[in-house]
Parts: sequence; structure tokens; C-alpha cells
Amino acid sequence: MGKHSTNMRVKLPIFCLLLEAITILLFAIFVRYNDETDASEWHDRMKKHNESNADNDFYFRYASFQDVHTMIFIGFGFLMTFLKCYGFSSVAFNFLIAAFGLQWSTLIQGFFHGFHDGKIHIGIESMINADFCTGAVLISFGAVLGKTSPVQLIVMTLFEVTLFGINEFIILSILGAKDAGGSMTIHTFGAYFGLVVSRVLYRPQLEKSRAREGSIYHSDLFAMIGTIYLWMFWPSFNSAVTAHGDDQHRTVLNTYYSLAACTLATFALSSMLNGEGKLDMVHIQNAALAGGVAVGTSAEMMLTPFGAMIAGCLAGIISVLGYKFLTPVLDSKLKIQDTCGVHNLHGMPGILGALIGVIVAAAATADIYGLGMEDVFPLIYDGTRTSKSQAVYQLLALLVALAFALIGGIIVGFILTIPIFGAPSDAQCFEDAIYWEVPGEEGHQQMIAVNTEDPDQQTNA
Amino acid sequence: MGKHSTNMRVKLPIFCLLLEAITILLFAIFVRYNDETDASEWHDRMKKHNESNADNDFYFRYASFQDVHTMIFIGFGFLMTFLKCYGFSSVAFNFLIAAFGLQWSTLIQGFFHGFHDGKIHIGIESMINADFCTGAVLISFGAVLGKTSPVQLIVMTLFEVTLFGINEFIILSILGAKDAGGSMTIHTFGAYFGLVVSRVLYRPQLEKSRAREGSIYHSDLFAMIGTIYLWMFWPSFNSAVTAHGDDQHRTVLNTYYSLAACTLATFALSSMLNGEGKLDMVHIQNAALAGGVAVGTSAEMMLTPFGAMIAGCLAGIISVLGYKFLTPVLDSKLKIQDTCGVHNLHGMPGILGALIGVIVAAAATADIYGLGMEDVFPLIYDGTRTSKSQAVYQLLALLVALAFALIGGIIVGFILTIPIFGAPSDAQCFEDAIYWEVPGEEGHQQMIAVNTEDPDQQTNA
Amino acid sequence: MGKHSTNMRVKLPIFCLLLEAITILLFAIFVRYNDETDASEWHDRMKKHNESNADNDFYFRYASFQDVHTMIFIGFGFLMTFLKCYGFSSVAFNFLIAAFGLQWSTLIQGFFHGFHDGKIHIGIESMINADFCTGAVLISFGAVLGKTSPVQLIVMTLFEVTLFGINEFIILSILGAKDAGGSMTIHTFGAYFGLVVSRVLYRPQLEKSRAREGSIYHSDLFAMIGTIYLWMFWPSFNSAVTAHGDDQHRTVLNTYYSLAACTLATFALSSMLNGEGKLDMVHIQNAALAGGVAVGTSAEMMLTPFGAMIAGCLAGIISVLGYKFLTPVLDSKLKIQDTCGVHNLHGMPGILGALIGVIVAAAATADIYGLGMEDVFPLIYDGTRTSKSQAVYQLLALLVALAFALIGGIIVGFILTIPIFGAPSDAQCFEDAIYWEVPGEEGHQQMIAVNTEDPDQQTNA
Repeated sequence: MGKHSTNMRVKLPIFCLLLEAITILLFAIFVRYNDETDASEWHDRMKKHNESNADNDFYFRYASFQDVHTMIFIGFGFLMTFLKCYGFSSVAFNFLIAAFGLQWSTLIQGFFHGFHDGKIHIGIESMINADFCTGAVLISFGAVLGKTSPVQLIVMTLFEVTLFGINEFIILSILGAKDAGGSMTIHTFGAYFGLVVSRVLYRPQLEKSRAREGSIYHSDLFAMIGTIYLWMFWPSFNSAVTAHGDDQHRTVLNTYYSLAACTLATFALSSMLNGEGKLDMVHIQNAALAGGVAVGTSAEMMLTPFGAMIAGCLAGIISVLGYKFLTPVLDSKLKIQDTCGVHNLHGMPGILGALIGVIVAAAATADIYGLGMEDVFPLIYDGTRTSKSQAVYQLLALLVALAFALIGGIIVGFILTIPIFGAPSDAQCFEDAIYWEVPGEEGHQQMIAVNTEDPDQQTNA
Repeated sequence: MGKHSTNMRVKLPIFCLLLEAITILLFAIFVRYNDETDASEWHDRMKKHNESNADNDFYFRYASFQDVHTMIFIGFGFLMTFLKCYGFSSVAFNFLIAAFGLQWSTLIQGFFHGFHDGKIHIGIESMINADFCTGAVLISFGAVLGKTSPVQLIVMTLFEVTLFGINEFIILSILGAKDAGGSMTIHTFGAYFGLVVSRVLYRPQLEKSRAREGSIYHSDLFAMIGTIYLWMFWPSFNSAVTAHGDDQHRTVLNTYYSLAACTLATFALSSMLNGEGKLDMVHIQNAALAGGVAVGTSAEMMLTPFGAMIAGCLAGIISVLGYKFLTPVLDSKLKIQDTCGVHNLHGMPGILGALIGVIVAAAATADIYGLGMEDVFPLIYDGTRTSKSQAVYQLLALLVALAFALIGGIIVGFILTIPIFGAPSDAQCFEDAIYWEVPGEEGHQQMIAVNTEDPDQQTNA
Repeated sequence: MGKHSTNMRVKLPIFCLLLEAITILLFAIFVRYNDETDASEWHDRMKKHNESNADNDFYFRYASFQDVHTMIFIGFGFLMTFLKCYGFSSVAFNFLIAAFGLQWSTLIQGFFHGFHDGKIHIGIESMINADFCTGAVLISFGAVLGKTSPVQLIVMTLFEVTLFGINEFIILSILGAKDAGGSMTIHTFGAYFGLVVSRVLYRPQLEKSRAREGSIYHSDLFAMIGTIYLWMFWPSFNSAVTAHGDDQHRTVLNTYYSLAACTLATFALSSMLNGEGKLDMVHIQNAALAGGVAVGTSAEMMLTPFGAMIAGCLAGIISVLGYKFLTPVLDSKLKIQDTCGVHNLHGMPGILGALIGVIVAAAATADIYGLGMEDVFPLIYDGTRTSKSQAVYQLLALLVALAFALIGGIIVGFILTIPIFGAPSDAQCFEDAIYWEVPGEEGHQQMIAVNTEDPDQQTNA
């Protein structure tokens, strides 16, 4: 194995345990229950403000939180199991980095958003935001899937979560842009960050592993579990942290119709672009989701149902076109090896979503929003901004997200090239057997024989 | 391929894009946010009626909606992946027609139920109803699974959704029948519609594809994902649009116990009817769900828990008996080829459910329901009807559902025989490879060699 | 087959139908809707107490209930599909015994907890508790997985549910201990009960079936579906029956962070303990969940987020250590054959969880809990107990749970040895084909040839 030692026996435990210990220490110092999770404070608040238990934000957001949670751990995790020999790593590294990411982002987002009297106060909304942040990391993971060691992924998570927190703070708090479903903060940032990291980690001899960079029949069915969960629960994702009442309700509705329309467009394009009119599972698994990304910024706004459907259609079309024509070019010309095609699912639709947000914000009027303006565009409501200036800030936010992704991706990409993190060699990519005790099975056996010296336990033989 | 051209390159994109364009246009003209999703109207309403955000129907129904959504896309989708060579088509065509169906049914149901001042007003309840309507289409899909092209399925969806809307309007609005979980409107209608379509599309030489009309070990496990989700969330299905409070609560409880009892009966019968006492996955995957269908009409009524359990047991018993004895007869004598056995899961249990509804309605008294009568039987509550006359209307509703299914199924069945829709030949049924770029895999390879001239991409070879 | 007749044709139907009939009869006599599910009573209550439909407990608990339901049927069911030739039995026997268990526990728990005026009143909380009780049975099922017939499992369920109800009544009602997430009542009891049963049913020649006691590549992916669902929804499990408001909210938060920390510890230990630093799917599938068990008693208390994380880390560490070092010893020295390693996932972490509960209860002060003390520690709140005495009762509760598990396990274990229940022979364990019509598939075919005389239907051949 030489310079590419993928043996994780020392590195992975040290990184996991050390970071966990630091995280726990920082939690002990900084993190406290907020006034809805603290026994004493909540009862004081109920008494003081004449509230009841039903007013606890838990009941407005917990169902949505669990849907988001399902998207992060089942959705992203299984979507990536399409690779024939990388199912264990896909679902389990997804699990690992999301579990670390949500803890770390509680701290980072807490410092920027929930820091009062020297303490970070947490509850259901901070938990949703922590999950959101891991979503961006998992998008980046999709770009480098199969080509990075778990230690590299943890290091990437550490830095990306930190950058995410700063980027999000600038976009939401400083620029006052709206981005409830994270077209900019999550999808655009996560995708381009991952693509730049993948560019820095370019593998000129990845051909050696190409035989494993594909699916088999049942791995595509596992991936469809991920797809369908992401598709179904995307309305919860976009609405999870919007204001109570009409805002959550409308965001769900817009996302639902956007995704439905996107699905039709995806099937149409997938069939149209194939010589024999055959559908491609890659498109169905991914492009059908682009409709959720495309309304991530605007779904809480008065987008109108048919507006949402147009957005969804556009997203589905550009996404399939991207898979068909752009991904090969990114690989061959720009040296960006994008395993899951996150540029097509999150990158371009994320930018589209941001631009739709610009347009819909520019069209906001007091007549359309009424008293609901306060929740959707508080700065327009209180007279600080016009619709047009809000639109300009929305556009600025997109540029900030792109800038953070590009610069951050370059820096973190170079950090990940440090040999000690144990990247696999070009011939070892997309291969579970280098990280896992893999049980014997026909299809898998054939593939792993290529790269591993030690035969894994063959219970089937 | 001659007259049976299954090449979808032109047809599928045209149908998808054209119908989507028409749908968007109709949405633009007719569909508007209702007063719970519109920013301005909701805030006006809160002010006028002294309501709070917590009164938004979203918080009473969203968790149920997502459960229903999961049943439609994961439940139905994966239940049908039991076929060894048709997993892609099962889950993905389910996805396609549900995504189209929910948009189209928003329009159709909107014209009949939510049309005010020339506009259709939508929110969480209309979204649930749209999902419900797609449920009926997916039941019909189960009857013709593997024997119809995606274009045929889209055409079927277009017409079936329309008929569903009319049928539902007659049953609920004109006859004033109750059918919260859709024993009649969804299950009976969907099943018999699909069976009649299957009869019209009878394939005399389906034997040529019988080798593929079965499961393999892991495809049965994928199907169990569908089964378990349908089973778990059926209480949400039956209760999703019932009245707030005791109605939703009681409907959930009745369905929960009906399904539990049905499961015991299913295992008992499945073992009893096998020569060696062995269980049959087909029964477990399907008959165990019949308990949800059997209380679809009556679960919101004062059925009593033990009444629900008796209903569930009966449904499980007739469903297993149907799979064992009736399905072969339907095929050989009546020329009804019912791929998923929807007659046993939805047809007979749907009729049973309607009849139980008749009985429980007839037994309604002011003493049992108290002030709750208004929600369950408004026409009995306001004195328009007696319990007995309500029961008669319930029975009439069943006949209407059957009539719509039979006549509609014949008409739509004949429409689907138009050659341009690209039905597969009798020898090409239950085969993903005619519609999909199928990745290489041993088990699958063997099967598809029978029918396709062009070798599909063999990444594994 | 001689004395080990595994033919279920007579036994299984009789047991299922007889028990179901008895259950329905007992429901008819004893079980009634409570005042939140009964149409008349709920409307009377709303009128009398000036409540609205939103006050119905349904809206506080239904989303959590469905998460718990998913853990029971998908989580436990698929977690156990890791065995290469026992996937059907794992998911389907899980389904069967949970469906029976929840009905039976409604009666047993009802007699102890909800018995008023000679009737058991049921609603969403009793449904959650019924699901909880089946959780304990499913944990025991994990210990004996693959080595017991479905009839044995039903008999075990019948008795274990009964013992569970008595044990829970003593712990919660007589001792006044707190155990919202069931570290003691569910995990400790269920695990040690199952381990003792497994000890009584010790199979000296299980070596004959060892070739099937392992996973294959895709069976491990199916198992990960179970793992991830258990992991995601554990916060709902621990909080499902805690008091409204801060209690549910805080319990969710503590469990979320405990599990996240546990996951890092699990990956670290799994890699550290392998000679090549390779991860083991068994650890990831199981030990990463121990964090949920470890805060089952204390998550509703003011554990603090970093306290939860420490608990999670400890649980992950002892769990992986248990799989690595203790399970082989239990098997070889103590003759306890623990198929799923429930001692590592539920046994030791359950005891740990109980002890953490002792410590956190002892640390309770009026200052920390304020008026929230009433919900968490009512006996401390009303002055009946000090924190220290509450801690003593918590410790007593653990001893009661262990005693019930050990004595109950011995008795029930011996009952299960009655030959009529049809246990498989030592050479027939972990084999679906003795209970199921198994469709042909390469990998599976090879294994089942060992034990079955009759060739199962080979649709593939």
C-alpha cells in the first residue's frame, strides 16, 4: 500500500474520540437548554406569559424535524448506495459525518445565532438547523464519494460546518436575505464546495476504479429508497424553520407541487435524451429532486402554485441535461470528478432557486402579503427596504454563497491532501473492502479481488 | 418489434410535457392559495376571528399527510417491487403516475369540492385528497403491473382521476355517504376499475412472460418495506381527513386494532392452506393489510375496538382465501390477469368495508354519539336522515362505486388498447429492460436475455 | 424430521386464531374508548371543561406514536434481516409477534394502569405503551432469533407481555420510579429475559447451522434500514409518553445528542479493535444505538446536553467492547447464544441507563427543576420523597427489572421447551426455508440445500 495507507486503526479512533471529547467539553462550557427545554424556565415562562404547553415550539416543528432527520440519514445515506461496491461506506460514512456534523454545527451556529449571556441555548429549532448544516456537508460528500477516507471526511466536516456557519450568518443575519430551504446556504454552498474539493483532489488515474463506479440492479433499488424519502419530505425540509401558520403551510404546498412537476419533466427528458427512449435510473434518482432545491428560497414566499410548478419543471430539465451533457465535460475538461452529480442536483438548481428567490422578492407587494409580510420579509414590512432592494440583497447572498464555496473548497481541499488522512489510491476508489469487514457475496467478491491482498471472510464459500 | 414498439423516446416525453403544460396552465387560471396558505388572507382571518397560528389546519393534519404520502410513494411503490425483473418500473412508474395524478386530481377534485368564485382553493386537506386519489390509481396499477407501458399508465391516470373525482362527488356530496378512509371511493373503485381494465387488456399468451412473474429472495424483502409502511401508516390514511379531535383519534385507534387482528388471521390462514404449513410471502405482503381497507368506511364511526378487530380478522381471512383460490380462477376462467392480486387486498375487503359501514351506520344512536354525531353523521344530527336511511345511502354509495369502476374500466380499457400507447408484447411483460437502461447483474441478466435484442450495458462483465 | 417437526400447518393457525379469538372476547368485555376517542364523551368533556379539539392528547402524541410504530415494525424488523437466509422470518415474525403483542399488552397494561369501573379505557397513550411493551418482546426475540419457531415466539410473547405488565406496574406505580424511555422496563427486562430464555434453550450442536449465522452484502444493507430508523426515531421513543411541553422537548434533545455522540464512539472503537482498522457492520448496526438506551431513564430529567453526550459515548464504548469480547464468552462459557447481541445493545446499556437515572435523580434540586419538578419527579415535588430517596427507588427498580427478567426467563424458557411448539433442530436454525415458500435465488439456494428435503419452488431454474 506504500504511501497510501488506508489502514484506519489509529487515525480514525483518534480523530473521532478527540473531536468528540472537544465537542463535549465545549458543550459543557457553552451549551444550555433554552426556555422551552429547561424545566424551570419553561414553567416560569408559561406562568409569566400565560402560555400553555401547546405553545411550546416543539409541537409546531417536531414532525417536520423528524422528516428532515429522515432525509439526512435515510435520504442522503441510501441515495448514495447506488454504487455496487460502496454501499456500506455510503450509508455508514453518511451516518458518521452527519452525527459529528450536527454536534459541531450546534456549536458553530450557536455562536452565531443563539449566543446569549455567553451561552448557546438550544431546542428544536437549533436541532433542525444543525441537521440542515449537515445537509450541506452531505452534498459535498456526494461529490467526493468513494474517493475519500473517513478521516478526510471528518476533517472536511469540521471545516465545512464552520464555513457554513459563517456563510449562513452573513447571508441571513447581515444581508437579511431569506433562504428558508437553503437554496443558497445549503445547496449552492454545499455543491460548489464539494466540487472544488473534488477538483483539488483530482485523480488522474481514476480509470483504474471505473469498473466499480456504477450500480447493479438491487443497489439502484436501495438508492430509490433514498430518492423517494428525499422527494416526499422535501416539503418538510423547506418549511421546517419558516414562521408558524401560513408560512409553514404555504412552503409545504409550493414544494409539493414543484416536486410533482419536476418529476414529470425528469421522466420526459430522460427518455427523450436516450437513443432508444429508455429511462436512466440516475436521472430518476436525482433530477426528480431538483424541484425541491429550486424552490428552497422562494417556497415560503407568495410564489403561487403554478409558479412552483414552473420552477420544478425548469429544475428537472436542467438537471437531466446536466447529467447527460455537463457531467462528462466537467470530468474530462475541468477535472472535476463528481461521483453523484451534485452539480446537477444541487449546484445548478441551487443557483436557479436563488434567482427565483430574487424575482419573487422583487415582486413582493403589500397587497399580496398583507400582514403576512412581517414574517416573510420583515425588512420590507418595517419599511427598511423596498422589494427591489430586498431582491438585490438576495442576489448578493448568492454571490456570497458561491464565494464561500469556492474559496473554502480550495482551502479545505488542500488541507485534505495531507497524506496522514489516508486517502485511497486511484485504484482503490469506490471499494468498501478497504474500510470494512465485507461478508462474502458473489457479485461483490469479483470486484474486490482487484484491490485487496487479504481475502475478506468468505462465509459463503 | 414490429407493431409492438415499446420505444418511448417520442411518446413518453410528449405525453409528460404536454400534460404538465396543460396542468400548469389550468393551475395558473384556476388554482389559488386558500385562506390558510395565503399570507394576506390567513393574517386577516386570524385578526377577524381571533385565531392563532396554532388553529391553522396544517398542525392538525400535516403529520398524517406525510404518513399518507409515505404510503403512496414508498408503500405502494415498494410493495410492487416483488417482481424479480420489474423493480425499477414498479417503484418508478408508481412515482411517475402518482406525481402526475396528484396534480391532476387537485384540479378535478377542486372543480367538484373546492370551487369558490371561479377558483380552486388549496391547502393541506386538498393535498391529502389529491394523494388519496392517486391511491386509487395505484391500486389499479397493481392489477395491470408489468403489462402496460408508462404512456398507457399516464393515460389511465388521466381518465381514472377524472372518474374518481366524479364518483367521489356523487358518493360524498350527493349521496351524503361517509367514507373517510375510502373503502368505496378508493379501494373498491380502484380495484374493480383496474380489474376491468386488465380484463379488456387480456393477454392470451402471457405464459411467455410467466418466468418473470415471480419474486426472488431479496425482491420480497424490498416488497416488505412497502407492506410494513402501508400497515403502520394506515391509521393515518383512514384518519387524515376526518374531523378534528375524537374523530381523528378514534379512527386511528380502530384502524390500529383492525390491522393487528388481521395480521394474526393472515399468518394463520397462510400456514393452514399450505400443504407443508409453510407461509407464503404473497399473503403476508398483502392480506395483512386488508384490515385497513375493511375499516376504511367505519373506522371514524363508533365501531368499538373489538368490532374493528372482527372486521380485521374477516378481511385477513377472505384476502388469503382469495389469493389461494380465487385469483387462479379469475385468471383461467374470467380472463382477469391480476398481477398484484388487488382483488384480494382492495376489491373484496373494500366491499366488506362498505358493508361494515352500512351496518355501523344503521346502528348509530344519539346516545352513542352524543354531540359527536354532528361530525360523524351530520345528516342524522340535523334530523335530515335516520340511521336506517343513512345506511341505505351507504349501500347506494357502494353500488355507485362499483358501477363507476365497471363502466369506467371498460371505456378506459378500450382507450388503452390504442396501439400508439406502446403496450409491450405478451413475451415482454414484467421486464424492466424494455424501458430502462438496466445495469448488469447475474440474476437479472439471465431473464432479460429472453426478450431484448440489444445487450444492455454490462458494467459487471 | 422425527421429533423436531417444524411443520406449522396445525399449530400456528390454532395458536393464532385461538389467541386472537380470546383477545377479541376480552376486548369486547373490558375495552372501551377513553374520553378522548369516544364521540359522546369527548364532546361532553370539551363542553364541560371549555376545551377545544386541539387539547385532545392525539395532537401531542400522534407524530411520536408513528415514530415509535416505525421503530417497532421497520426498525426492529429490518435490523434483524442481517442474517443471510433468515430475512423473511426476521421481518415477518417480528411483524407477527408485535401485532399480537400490542393487542395482548393493551389488555395486560390496561388491567394494571387504565382500569376504571371495570373497564379498560384506551387512546393514543395506551397505544404507545402497547407498542413499548412489544419492544421488550422484540428485544428478547433478538436473543433467540433463528432458533425458535413462530409458535414458540407467540407463546413467549403471551407470557413476556404479561410479565412486562406486572414488572412495569411495580416499577412505575408501586416504586414510583421514573423510566420514560424504558431503560429498565423495556431494555434491561427484555434483554435479560431473552438471554435467560436463550440459555434455557441452549443448543449444543448449533455449529451445524453456523454457516448461515452471518450476513451477506445486501442483507447488511437491509439491516442498516432498521438501524437508521431506530437511531433517528429514538428521541420520539424516549419522549412519547413524557409530560407535555418541556418534558417531551427536553427528552428529544437529550436523546438526539446522546445518539450522535454514541455514533462517534462506536466508529472509533470498531476501527480500533480490528487488526487492520476495518469497521465491522455489526457494531455500526447495533452499538451506535446504545446511546438511546443509555438515556432511556434520564432523558426526561435535567441531564444537560453534555451529560447526554457522555452517556452516549459510554454506551457506545461498552457496547462495541461487548460485541468484541463478551459475546464469544457468553456463548462458549455461559452457554448463552445471543444471535443479535442484545446483551450489548440493550442489556448493558440498559443497566447503564438505569444507573445514570439513579445519579441524575439524586442530583435533582428545586432550583434546577422549578415548577417543572411536578412533571418529572412528582413525589419530590409534593414532598413525599427527597432526591436521595428517589434515587434509591430508581436503583430498586433496576433490581426488580433484573429479577423479573431472570426468574421470568427461566420459567418461560422451560415452557418453550415443550416439544409441541415445534422448535427447529440444531441443523435447521437461521433458515427461512423451513417456514416459508422461498423463491429460488442463487445465494440462498446453496444454503438451504443443506437442510431441506423438499426442493422449494425454483422459478429461476
